[in-house]
Amino acid sequence: MAKVKVLSAKDVEELMTLPMAIEAVESAYRQKARGKGETWPMVFHEFVHGVADLDIKSGHMEDAGIFGLKLVSWYGENPGKGLPALYGTTLVFDLASGEPRALVNAGPVTDFRTGAAGAIGAKALARPDSKTLLMAGAGALAPYLIAATLYLMPGLEKVLLANPHHPEKAAEVLGTVTAQVDELLGKSGVKRGAEMAAAADLEGAVKESDIILTATPAYEPFIKAEWVRPGTHLSCVGADMSGKEEVDPALFAKAAVFGDDEGQCMSVGECEIPHAKGFLTALRGELGAVLTGDLPGRTGAEEITIFDSTGIALQDLSSAAALLKAAEEKELGVTAEL
Amino acid sequence: MAKVKVLSAKDVEELMTLPMAIEAVESAYRQKARGKGETWPMVFHEFVHGVADLDIKSGHMEDAGIFGLKLVSWYGENPGKGLPALYGTTLVFDLASGEPRALVNAGPVTDFRTGAAGAIGAKALARPDSKTLLMAGAGALAPYLIAATLYLMPGLEKVLLANPHHPEKAAEVLGTVTAQVDELLGKSGVKRGAEMAAAADLEGAVKESDIILTATPAYEPFIKAEWVRPGTHLSCVGADMSGKEEVDPALFAKAAVFGDDEGQCMSVGECEIPHAKGFLTALRGELGAVLTGDLPGRTGAEEITIFDSTGIALQDLSSAAALLKAAEEKELGVTAEL
Repeated sequence: MAKVKVLSAKDVEELMTLPMAIEAVESAYRQKARGKGETWPMVFHEFVHGVADLDIKSGHMEDAGIFGLKLVSWYGENPGKGLPALYGTTLVFDLASGEPRALVNAGPVTDFRTGAAGAIGAKALARPDSKTLLMAGAGALAPYLIAATLYLMPGLEKVLLANPHHPEKAAEVLGTVTAQVDELLGKSGVKRGAEMAAAADLEGAVKESDIILTATPAYEPFIKAEWVRPGTHLSCVGADMSGKEEVDPALFAKAAVFGDDEGQCMSVGECEIPHAKGFLTALRGELGAVLTGDLPGRTGAEEITIFDSTGIALQDLSSAAALLKAAEEKELGVTAEL
Repeated sequence: MAKVKVLSAKDVEELMTLPMAIEAVESAYRQKARGKGETWPMVFHEFVHGVADLDIKSGHMEDAGIFGLKLVSWYGENPGKGLPALYGTTLVFDLASGEPRALVNAGPVTDFRTGAAGAIGAKALARPDSKTLLMAGAGALAPYLIAATLYLMPGLEKVLLANPHHPEKAAEVLGTVTAQVDELLGKSGVKRGAEMAAAADLEGAVKESDIILTATPAYEPFIKAEWVRPGTHLSCVGADMSGKEEVDPALFAKAAVFGDDEGQCMSVGECEIPHAKGFLTALRGELGAVLTGDLPGRTGAEEITIFDSTGIALQDLSSAAALLKAAEEKELGVTAEL
């Protein structure tokens, strides 16, 4: 009889930290690069176009000794009924025996691991002397992306928060986002060094930034190629299904482009449309190969680099493995017989 | 915060009955036929060929108001380590909101719903005056298939139990299988009417049977076309992955062939090889359409009918929905916050 650990959103929020998420995501990318982790075909189903859909991403990771899946459902009309639009649920199995091991509320995990992904891309590909970070998108992911990037790049001096579709609203949420960033950093024992500011003028903000993180649900590019100065790095995490795009496709023709999973980047990521329009033939490579040292990252201070993070199951599995270990130590979660 | 019900193997064994499984599987077939239930692409992964693999089957059912998935892992070397080779886990979500609802040990569910499937095929397609049932395969599924068929067809007078690959062994397990059949029927308030006997001579058993159920892991046909007399019905449940077959492909050329899911039957079911070899062009139809009355089943007393049951996610989801209702009534299972 298998015993399954159930970790609730509350447990995950209590257990998860920035360094844990960063280590888990880096490990996922590295294992994928070394052929020790694999993702299986994604299942995607739309109940009603633009109203409700879901996907199932699955895979296995040798080092963590697990396989499993994450199911994310999105019901756009839920918030009107007082329910969250997104539910993410991760189911974890033992790779050695096939036995079920855990059910984890992946909601808070997704925020942490997506934030970590964007930050890992920035740390690996941005100029080490980067000073200014632009966060384009002021939604739920913004604090996680900013905090993880500040954690990995303590030399950053300034963070600009922009809301590309409602420029005036960035200032409204600046206080809340800053408080969340400080809380995330504080929980990891770090104090924010960079100054935080709202940017109503997106063009100006892009032009002064060394690193740009994009996290919006956009279907039209809002960052123009001519705004981006040489040497800039972009981590794009918004595009996670076909048709979504945030960055001018023309920029891809003059950038060094990396991704988390080449196939997924080309089919549902930020690379999809540049690839379809002929601006991008192939990735320079996957980020995992840069992290393992098998592939050079940035090749000069003038190069524009892009990291397309589409989100792979291994990030969730690796994070779930780390959470289970932490839950064991802190005796959190419910253990149920299955 | 979603609340998730965890139903263990023990809970499922306590709650599940033959009529519950039969009703759930019939409902799954009918909803599929009416377009109210849908299966999504299957994920199949082999860790090591012939040693360890898994599949993820998913879908939704309108009437039951749920969607979800079942992950089945098979680790062939587990029994040598004192572990079960198969683990089946069903994850259920609310179709109206996308919220996770339940985690169910699908192991015992699979036995029940597979037994029910074979029996429903027999009830729908066999001659109503059938007297003799041959169970070809004396493994874990045999008692479930026999009991469900006897439950649905109380006019059956004789059950022959055969072990096609080790003919002498059928007699050894006859007592155990009979006891399990009686227990399953007894739990549903029914007393077995048919006599049970072991059949060491497979050819003779096939020749005297009206209904043949096959449930073996065979990769070579063991039932010859020329043995099967006119008017026989076969429900084949053994073939669930590419390459498996139990019945002479030539029989398919002269039979009316039905299945649970046309695509799956042709790619991984008993139909795969007859189709590839040109003995079978297409199914007469799916069983669901026969159950709803949209498609005739057997068209004469001399017709040979075949039902290819590959197992579809909707059977598991429908069974899980019935189990959750029963668990609610009997206050079984663990409720955990997710």
